[in-house]
Amino acid sequence: MNTYRLLISCPDAHGLVAKVSQFIFEHNGNIKEAHHHLDAQNKRFFMRIEIESNPTHLLDDFKQAFTQLAKQYQMNWQMNDANQRKRILIMGSKSSHCVADLLHRGHENELEGNIIGILSNHNKLSKIASWYEVDFKQVAIEKATKTADMAKMMNTVDSFNPDVIVLARYMQIIPKSMCEKYQGKIINIHHSFLPSFVGANPYQRAADRGVKLIGATCHYITNELDEGPIIEQDVLRVDHSDSAAEMQKMGQDIEKITLAKGLQYHLEDRVLTCNNKTVVFR
Amino acid sequence: MNTYRLLISCPDAHGLVAKVSQFIFEHNGNIKEAHHHLDAQNKRFFMRIEIESNPTHLLDDFKQAFTQLAKQYQMNWQMNDANQRKRILIMGSKSSHCVADLLHRGHENELEGNIIGILSNHNKLSKIASWYEVDFKQVAIEKATKTADMAKMMNTVDSFNPDVIVLARYMQIIPKSMCEKYQGKIINIHHSFLPSFVGANPYQRAADRGVKLIGATCHYITNELDEGPIIEQDVLRVDHSDSAAEMQKMGQDIEKITLAKGLQYHLEDRVLTCNNKTVVFR
Amino acid sequence: MNTYRLLISCPDAHGLVAKVSQFIFEHNGNIKEAHHHLDAQNKRFFMRIEIESNPTHLLDDFKQAFTQLAKQYQMNWQMNDANQRKRILIMGSKSSHCVADLLHRGHENELEGNIIGILSNHNKLSKIASWYEVDFKQVAIEKATKTADMAKMMNTVDSFNPDVIVLARYMQIIPKSMCEKYQGKIINIHHSFLPSFVGANPYQRAADRGVKLIGATCHYITNELDEGPIIEQDVLRVDHSDSAAEMQKMGQDIEKITLAKGLQYHLEDRVLTCNNKTVVFR
Amino acid sequence: MNTYRLLISCPDAHGLVAKVSQFIFEHNGNIKEAHHHLDAQNKRFFMRIEIESNPTHLLDDFKQAFTQLAKQYQMNWQMNDANQRKRILIMGSKSSHCVADLLHRGHENELEGNIIGILSNHNKLSKIASWYEVDFKQVAIEKATKTADMAKMMNTVDSFNPDVIVLARYMQIIPKSMCEKYQGKIINIHHSFLPSFVGANPYQRAADRGVKLIGATCHYITNELDEGPIIEQDVLRVDHSDSAAEMQKMGQDIEKITLAKGLQYHLEDRVLTCNNKTVVFR
Repeated sequence: MNTYRLLISCPDAHGLVAKVSQFIFEHNGNIKEAHHHLDAQNKRFFMRIEIESNPTHLLDDFKQAFTQLAKQYQMNWQMNDANQRKRILIMGSKSSHCVADLLHRGHENELEGNIIGILSNHNKLSKIASWYEVDFKQVAIEKATKTADMAKMMNTVDSFNPDVIVLARYMQIIPKSMCEKYQGKIINIHHSFLPSFVGANPYQRAADRGVKLIGATCHYITNELDEGPIIEQDVLRVDHSDSAAEMQKMGQDIEKITLAKGLQYHLEDRVLTCNNKTVVFR
Repeated sequence: MNTYRLLISCPDAHGLVAKVSQFIFEHNGNIKEAHHHLDAQNKRFFMRIEIESNPTHLLDDFKQAFTQLAKQYQMNWQMNDANQRKRILIMGSKSSHCVADLLHRGHENELEGNIIGILSNHNKLSKIASWYEVDFKQVAIEKATKTADMAKMMNTVDSFNPDVIVLARYMQIIPKSMCEKYQGKIINIHHSFLPSFVGANPYQRAADRGVKLIGATCHYITNELDEGPIIEQDVLRVDHSDSAAEMQKMGQDIEKITLAKGLQYHLEDRVLTCNNKTVVFR
Repeated sequence: MNTYRLLISCPDAHGLVAKVSQFIFEHNGNIKEAHHHLDAQNKRFFMRIEIESNPTHLLDDFKQAFTQLAKQYQMNWQMNDANQRKRILIMGSKSSHCVADLLHRGHENELEGNIIGILSNHNKLSKIASWYEVDFKQVAIEKATKTADMAKMMNTVDSFNPDVIVLARYMQIIPKSMCEKYQGKIINIHHSFLPSFVGANPYQRAADRGVKLIGATCHYITNELDEGPIIEQDVLRVDHSDSAAEMQKMGQDIEKITLAKGLQYHLEDRVLTCNNKTVVFR
Repeated sequence: MNTYRLLISCPDAHGLVAKVSQFIFEHNGNIKEAHHHLDAQNKRFFMRIEIESNPTHLLDDFKQAFTQLAKQYQMNWQMNDANQRKRILIMGSKSSHCVADLLHRGHENELEGNIIGILSNHNKLSKIASWYEVDFKQVAIEKATKTADMAKMMNTVDSFNPDVIVLARYMQIIPKSMCEKYQGKIINIHHSFLPSFVGANPYQRAADRGVKLIGATCHYITNELDEGPIIEQDVLRVDHSDSAAEMQKMGQDIEKITLAKGLQYHLEDRVLTCNNKTVVFR
C-alpha cells in the first residue's frame, strides 16, 4: 500500500472537488485525508489529498492521466510519493539548540525526511554532526572574501543536492541567486514574532520595547529579508524581570519547536503558498 | 444564493468523497467548504460540506434524492439550511458572566442563532434579560419539592421549543429524561479542564491540588455527570499566589469564551459526535 | 483594617529593602504582599508593597514621615489607599464588545474602581450605558470641525474628573495636550500584537501578511501613536481559512480580556513605568 | 562577588520582612532579588532572597548568626551558595527525547547544575550518554527479580551522591524507601495534565476521552503515584484528527520543555513546598 500526496492550486471552478475525487476513484486511489481551501479574495482553490493505492504502478499512470485534467483547470500541482523521503540540508552557525533538536528528531525517525548534511560557517557544530553520523562541511564566510565565500557556500549546497534547506540560525543573508534557485525550498527560523523585529537582534529590541510575549517564526526565504511566507509561529510569555539575554535563552525552546513543526509540515507536503502567504493543511 | 450544511457519518468505504461530491455537483450545488475525517480505530468516516446553491428549491429535491445514496452507504446524515437559525435557550442560575457575554454576542449578531429565552432557578438574571429584550422565566428548584420543580422546569424548557439548550452555569443536575430527550442538544460549560475535577467546587479542588493551569470545558450533556463529549477546552496560567476565589474570578474569562466558541461550532453545524467524542470541523 | 499600596521607583542603593521594611514596621504597618525589581541596565529599583494597618490615621502620618526617607533615596513614590477607588472614564466609538465587558465587570464589582461615565463620538453606546446606569456623553468628532470638537471632547473629559481614562476602541487619535495632561492615566487597547501593525486596520494587515497568531495590546497612551508602554498582551491562533473579517471577530475576545486585565493591574496599582516600559507586579 | 539564595518558610508574623532584610543589610549582604508569599489559608509565610555579597566569608558567619533569628520565628530555612552547583542524576528508560534535551542543555551550560550520570533499566541511552561524556549505568529491572533489582538500582543511585534525581520518563515506580530518602529531591515528568490521567497510558486515555488539549506535568515524587507537588505544567492543542500515537509524538515537546523548566526552577532554588503544593518564585 503506497501513499501519495496530491497538491493542487488553481482558479476556483464549479465541480472541482467532484472532478478530482472522481478521477482518483477511477484510478484505484482511496482518499485517506483531504483538505480544501478557497481563497475568496484571490478566487483561488487549494487542495491536498492523501491517496492510498495498492498497485505500485499508480504513480506514473496517474500523473500522466492527471496532466489532462490539470491543464483544463489551469492547475499548479504536484504529486509526491510519501516513500520518497526528502533530503534535508541543515545550515547553521554557532548556536546549536535547533540543530541538536533536529538531529535528535532525525535520529529517532520522527522527521518525514533524511538529514543528509550540515553546512556551517563555523566549526562548532562538527562534533554533534559526527555524533549523529551526519556529513559536516564548513565554509567560512569572511568579510574580506565574502563574494568568493558565498559562491563556495552555494557550490557546497548544490553538491548536497538537497530537497529542502533548513536555516537553523545560520545568521548570514542568503544571496539572491540562491533564494531564486531554491524558491519555496529554504526554510528559516526567525527569532521574533514577525513582522515585529525584522532583522538583527530581535530579543534586544523586544526587551527594549517592553513586549509581554516573545516569539519565533518559521518561514520560507525570499529576496526580502524576513518577509517570506510564514509557515508557523509561536510565542511565550515574558515580563519585566526578563533581560534580553534571558529572553534569548527562553526563546530557544520556541525557536526549536516552531522550526521543527514548520519543517515537518513542509516534509509532509502540507504547505502551499499563495502570493506571500501559506496555506497549511494540518 | 443559499447555503446548506451537509453532515455525514458512516462506515468508511472506497470512493465516498467522489460519490458525494459528484452528487452535489449534479444537483447544482457548489462546494464552498469541505472537511473530512477518517476515524481509523472505528473505521468511520465523517464529512461536513458547505454547499452553495442558487435554485431555492434545491433543499427538498436534494434531500429526497440524497436519501438513496445515504441508505446505500449506511449514513447518519443531516442537511441544514444556514438561513434557518437555531433557537437557543439559555439556562442560568446566579452567575451572570456567561449569560451576559452570550446576550451581548446575540445582540451584536455574532451568533449563528437566536436567543429565545433565559430560564433560571433564581431571579438574578431577569434584569439583564429585560435589557436585551429576551424572554425570562424563573423556575425555582427547592430541595423539598425537587421532583415537582424539575418537572415544571422541563415543561418550561419544552414550551420554548428550543433547538439547543445552553447551560450557562446552571448548577443543577439535569434529569435523565431531559438528557435523553435533548440528546446532543444540551451544551454545558464546566469550570475545570475535564476530566480533572469532575463535579462540584473545581476551583477549590484545583487550588488544593496546586495545579499551574486552570481550565474550562464546553461539552454535550449526557446521563453521566461531566462525562459527555467535549467540544472545546481552554486553560489559563495560575500560580501559588492565586487563591481558589481568585481562580474562580480569573476562570470566568475562559468559561465565557470557551462556551461561546463551543456553542458557535454547534450553531454552525461543525460538530459531529462519535461514541463519546466529537469531531469539530473548524 | 485598611490596605495601602506603596509604589517606589528610585536609583538602586544598598539596604533599600531593609530601610523601607523597617520603616513600615515601625509605623505599625504589616506587609501583606511585596514585589521588587532591579532594572540592571538602568540601575533603578522598583518596589510595590501592600501594607495592612489598623490605626486609621496611619496614612497621613506615614506619608509625612516617609517623605524624608524618599528624599534621601531620590524616590519617585506614591501611596494609595485601597479604599479610595479610582474613577474610570470609558471612551468608546461604535464597537461595543470592550465597553459591554467592562460595564458588566463593573456591575459585578469585579473592578477595583468605579466606572463614572462613557464618552463617545457616536450614539450607539448610549443604550448599554443606560442599562448599567452609567452617565453617557456624546461628543461627535467631525472632519470639518475637528479642532473645536476635540476641544469640546477634552472639556467633557475634564468635567468627569477621571483618575483613569480607558480607550475602549475609541478610534480617534488623542490630542497631544490631553496625552500630556493625563500622562500615565490613559489606557488603550490596540487590536494587534504591537509593535506589529501599528496604526489602522491591523486585522487586514495581519491577514495580508499571513501571520499565524493575532494579538491585542493594552498600553498607556503617549504622543507617539501605539508606542506607549505596554501593560499586557495576548494572542490567539488563526490560519489560512480565517479572513480579515473573521480575525476581527475572533480578536474581540482577546481585546476585551487583555484590556480588562491591563486596566485591573492599573487599578490595583500594580504598574510602574520606566522609560517606555512597564514593570507589572502581579 | 558571591550570590546566595536564602529560602524561608515559617508561620506568618508581624515585621518578618523588616527583620530579615535588616539582618541581611547588617551582614553586608545586598538583596538582588526578593520574593514573598503569604499562604493566607495556612498562615504561613514564604521568602526567597538572592543575596550578593563581597566578603567570601559571609556564608558561615551569616548562617551561624541567622540560626538565632530562624529559631525565634520557627523558620524552615536553607541558604545555598549559587556557586555550588547541584549534582544531577538522570534516570531514563527507552525514550530519549527528555534525556537528549537535558544533556544538550547541560552541554551548553544552560542548567544551573551538573549532570553527573544517567541510570537506566535499558541500554538504549548509553550511546547518547557517551557522546556527552556523561557516566552511564544500566540496572535492568526484571519482573522475576524486581526486589533485588530495585535494591541494586537504589545502591547505584546512592553511589552517584546526587543532589537531585530527574525521572526523565523512567517508567518504573520508585520504591517507598527511596521516595522518603530523597524527599523533595526527585523530579518526575508525567505525560498528562495532572490530575487528569494519573498512571499508565495517559495519551491513549486522553484520546479515548476526546480532550482538546494534552499536557505534561513536572512534579516532585511522593509515595502516592502522580500525586506529588506540581512544579510546572503545560498543554498543547490537539483535535479529533490526532490519534493517541500522534498525541504521544506531539506531547514529547511539552514533556521535554516542562521538565527542563521545572528542573531549572529547582536548581535555582526557586521552589518551596507547602503540604502538597509548591510555591515557585519565578
